[in-house]
Amino acid sequence: MQSFEALSGEFAVRFDTAHFPERPASLYGPASYFLGLGGKRIRPVMCLMGNELFGEIEPDAWQLAAAIELFHNFTLIHDDIMDRAPLRRGKQTVHEKYGPSTALLAGDVMLVAAYEYINKVGSGHVRSILQLFNTTAKQVCEGQQIDMDFEKKEQVGYDEYLSMIEMKTSVLLAASLQMGAILGGAGLGNQQHLYEFGRSLGLAFQIQDDYLDAFGDPAKFGKQVGGDILTGKKTFLLIRALETADGSQRREIAALQHADPAARIEGMLRLFRACGVDAWARELKEKYMQAALRHLEDTAVLSRRKEPLQQLAAFLLQRDY
Amino acid sequence: MQSFEALSGEFAVRFDTAHFPERPASLYGPASYFLGLGGKRIRPVMCLMGNELFGEIEPDAWQLAAAIELFHNFTLIHDDIMDRAPLRRGKQTVHEKYGPSTALLAGDVMLVAAYEYINKVGSGHVRSILQLFNTTAKQVCEGQQIDMDFEKKEQVGYDEYLSMIEMKTSVLLAASLQMGAILGGAGLGNQQHLYEFGRSLGLAFQIQDDYLDAFGDPAKFGKQVGGDILTGKKTFLLIRALETADGSQRREIAALQHADPAARIEGMLRLFRACGVDAWARELKEKYMQAALRHLEDTAVLSRRKEPLQQLAAFLLQRDY
Repeated sequence: MQSFEALSGEFAVRFDTAHFPERPASLYGPASYFLGLGGKRIRPVMCLMGNELFGEIEPDAWQLAAAIELFHNFTLIHDDIMDRAPLRRGKQTVHEKYGPSTALLAGDVMLVAAYEYINKVGSGHVRSILQLFNTTAKQVCEGQQIDMDFEKKEQVGYDEYLSMIEMKTSVLLAASLQMGAILGGAGLGNQQHLYEFGRSLGLAFQIQDDYLDAFGDPAKFGKQVGGDILTGKKTFLLIRALETADGSQRREIAALQHADPAARIEGMLRLFRACGVDAWARELKEKYMQAALRHLEDTAVLSRRKEPLQQLAAFLLQRDY
Repeated sequence: MQSFEALSGEFAVRFDTAHFPERPASLYGPASYFLGLGGKRIRPVMCLMGNELFGEIEPDAWQLAAAIELFHNFTLIHDDIMDRAPLRRGKQTVHEKYGPSTALLAGDVMLVAAYEYINKVGSGHVRSILQLFNTTAKQVCEGQQIDMDFEKKEQVGYDEYLSMIEMKTSVLLAASLQMGAILGGAGLGNQQHLYEFGRSLGLAFQIQDDYLDAFGDPAKFGKQVGGDILTGKKTFLLIRALETADGSQRREIAALQHADPAARIEGMLRLFRACGVDAWARELKEKYMQAALRHLEDTAVLSRRKEPLQQLAAFLLQRDY
């Protein structure tokens, strides 16, 4: 079995190829530009790891991994348009550099290209893989729509927020792993455990992400803390705080919206702590991490085959903070 | 064999079903709204006709026809965003009614839904169908991008315009027919003839569309003539006129851009006639129509099986004007 670094490296080499024709350059140039921005390629690696749980990595798994990464990039290009994001990985987003219409089309052809890679999967399992891929793709779109709906809502409940996060970020991790496993001939029970591992891992990661944005050590976290507080983004922390705050704390939260940036961050962090949101988030992350590891434990393959996935979970979640 | 009306009617009944889950309604409501606007359903019917050339219509053909119609609607929703079109079939476009972000996502899920229908095709031919579907989907995106590029260009050559129109409108007609034929077990020769029939038919139709916008009888054409002239749209007529006009005619065309609407239409029509563009367009349309019919003739199936496609060509192209 190979480590995350090894698989990620090998995937990067294989993926660094022309996925599109040269012309029209006005369409495929922008699409290739975005792929060139890189990324950690976590999803395709999870597909490869899911496949390797059941034997040697099959040639089909690389096609499938490429499809997954193209799909993920399609969602990023379109999300950036919707979020009006100027930057992605420190570089101009596609719509910022080439205009929203071209970004829209570049995303569209990238989704089609993903399906082209799936059609290269020779395995007889391709139909069930395609079915899972389609279901997941729709869920990711649903998650994005619900996220946009939340922006217009005054208050969002914890359960509906969790469900949105699950669709927006966890199901693709879960499905990537499961698709690799299906290709490897996994039975339904193993498939389900692996899906749940990926889903729980994704949730734990998102909770951690929200936590670090507020409570992370700026030196280790790599960016200024409090970004989410300043943009007023609904996070696990804010939603929990609003659900547990008493009357005076709620009034304080409302008043802080008009405070200057530094006071706003400081005030919100104080309130988060007063509501016990920091400890709650650490426990919630731990809960999902343990659930993930339990599902991996319950997957009926040789223990040593699971090591790369255990390491991946540790890499993603045992961040120093 | 069944007529266009019969197939279109039966398709409409079968297609009038829930293609999406109910929730989130904020995403699937807009998608369903757009499908409810209707349309002539030409592409799915061509798929069904392509299938019926080789025998009884197979259950798979209805799945494929639904996929094609969903794909077509996906392109319309996204094109409307890019073109900032307020209306489609006399009703509000999706982005106009629900905002551009939701329209973007509604298009995305519609494309995924198209692939879900393809995955329901049980036939062993599904792989070659999917390959043609993907190739065509990319070409349609390319055509849209090139069309947008043309808007920024001063002058566009006839050949590049023809190639753009081919991708934007003809290849999907051609591929719809071919996909139905593949499903029916057509050999490669027949597939190619049918593809060429559809491609030529699409080009003839577009030439006719451009022609009628300028020279159609308003009473029969159903809309005011000269719309393309007023918006300055690059059409077969304008491109041909710019390629054949002499120096003084070119200056006149340039000067007319600043004339008031009525004078602009009148002046451009006069110039089109002076350049012989009207007769040229009629001949060009005739040329592609004849090419289409020749390819249908050369398709090796029983003559009477071809009748619905001949009638379809006549319906689309023998318009009274």
